[in-house]
Amino acid sequence: MPRVVGYSPERREGIAALKAGAITEMADSATSAASSADLVVIAAPPAATVQLLPRISRALGAGAIVTDVASVKAPIVAAAVAAGLADRFAGAHPLAGTHGTGFDHASPDRLRGCVVYVCATGSDGGERAARGVSGFWQDTLDASAVRIDAGAHDRQLAWTSHLPQAVASALAHALAERGLGPLTFGSGGLDTTRLAASSPELWTDIFLQNAAPVAEALDAAQADAGRLAALIRAGDRAALRDYLDAAAIFRRGLDR
Amino acid sequence: MPRVVGYSPERREGIAALKAGAITEMADSATSAASSADLVVIAAPPAATVQLLPRISRALGAGAIVTDVASVKAPIVAAAVAAGLADRFAGAHPLAGTHGTGFDHASPDRLRGCVVYVCATGSDGGERAARGVSGFWQDTLDASAVRIDAGAHDRQLAWTSHLPQAVASALAHALAERGLGPLTFGSGGLDTTRLAASSPELWTDIFLQNAAPVAEALDAAQADAGRLAALIRAGDRAALRDYLDAAAIFRRGLDR
Repeated sequence: MPRVVGYSPERREGIAALKAGAITEMADSATSAASSADLVVIAAPPAATVQLLPRISRALGAGAIVTDVASVKAPIVAAAVAAGLADRFAGAHPLAGTHGTGFDHASPDRLRGCVVYVCATGSDGGERAARGVSGFWQDTLDASAVRIDAGAHDRQLAWTSHLPQAVASALAHALAERGLGPLTFGSGGLDTTRLAASSPELWTDIFLQNAAPVAEALDAAQADAGRLAALIRAGDRAALRDYLDAAAIFRRGLDR
Repeated sequence: MPRVVGYSPERREGIAALKAGAITEMADSATSAASSADLVVIAAPPAATVQLLPRISRALGAGAIVTDVASVKAPIVAAAVAAGLADRFAGAHPLAGTHGTGFDHASPDRLRGCVVYVCATGSDGGERAARGVSGFWQDTLDASAVRIDAGAHDRQLAWTSHLPQAVASALAHALAERGLGPLTFGSGGLDTTRLAASSPELWTDIFLQNAAPVAEALDAAQADAGRLAALIRAGDRAALRDYLDAAAIFRRGLDR
């Protein structure tokens, strides 16, 4: 790609991206970065993405399309439509994040070959934008673009991504309250709590923008944990083994 | 070490260990492997370890000491004392496991430099055995041996190891019931559920042998998840951010 214009509110991040060759130019605002672009990619937390959309809409050149990468899609697609971008926007969500944030955690291969959800606005023009955004992911990053309705995306991600984050944070919170030291954790405890290190600012946003489905999923996981505690207390070896078998079969199936 | 005699009830495992040079001889029973040893290491699930102790006690040569590597220590130390090994046994628990089981998941560096808990039986002879076991881990594997009372070990591990396992299994169980497919999970969901793939047989044992502390820890984690769900439902941005901050600070502290 001959020209990649970047902007970050953290100037240090822009300079790091420029030095690494991830961008070819650094703009001094989001709107100036967007004004000359054919494709605008907003890579910001959900609330910031919602705020940027009307500003970018006003700065956008003729024929340009806009996308984002946030983990919630329905509020963002709605904000894009409200900003007059119904025919020029498609939301995207690559399943390729880590608990890290910022350019320091970027890597040239992070997004290569990933699954990326693409959510159209629903208008005919939005359909063209969604094809353009899907093509961008497929052609430049060999990603598998999966078209999905924004609401269905958010209900699914409440379980597959937001729930694991919430569970990791709740587990870390419980361990923090117990006052356990760093040397006492093995790799299992470190892995299971790893997501708790993710940006609290970002996840406050995501949880609030997808509140009802996430709270519902968290209720279900809590009920399932309660069933496990009851089996352990009852000393019911056969039922406990069945429970752990079902969990193991499911998890081993994810590696195939 | 010039002579390492191995035995596994799975003959295939013994042959693999022999071929890889992890053992120098393969015995045809646990007792015959133990009979000529200076140090006997029982690497089996907790219930099997408890069952092996009296048999190994009867086969043991003069001056030999016995240890194990299971994730619960109080029932095993008690079984060793009951088997007449009060002066010749010390329990050990290296913090170096993975969700894998068997020789296929072994690696020459798995245990190198790990933290290993060592639990003495309480007798004078047991103290000598504990020093011998600690020395083995330190000298051959550069491990950090930490002496701890078996009961205190089990209460601590209920939080740092057994609880993460229980939470990962409960999360995987909830996701399995929801019927979600393998392609829908990103690295975060995979990491948080990874432990659920661990051996159900092994963990049925561990949970039942450490039932009260594990169930108590699971209650606390459930209550903490309930607080998180309530904050999300209430839309309380500041309190939600504080909750996630506390969890993130704790988790980031584990990486130092």
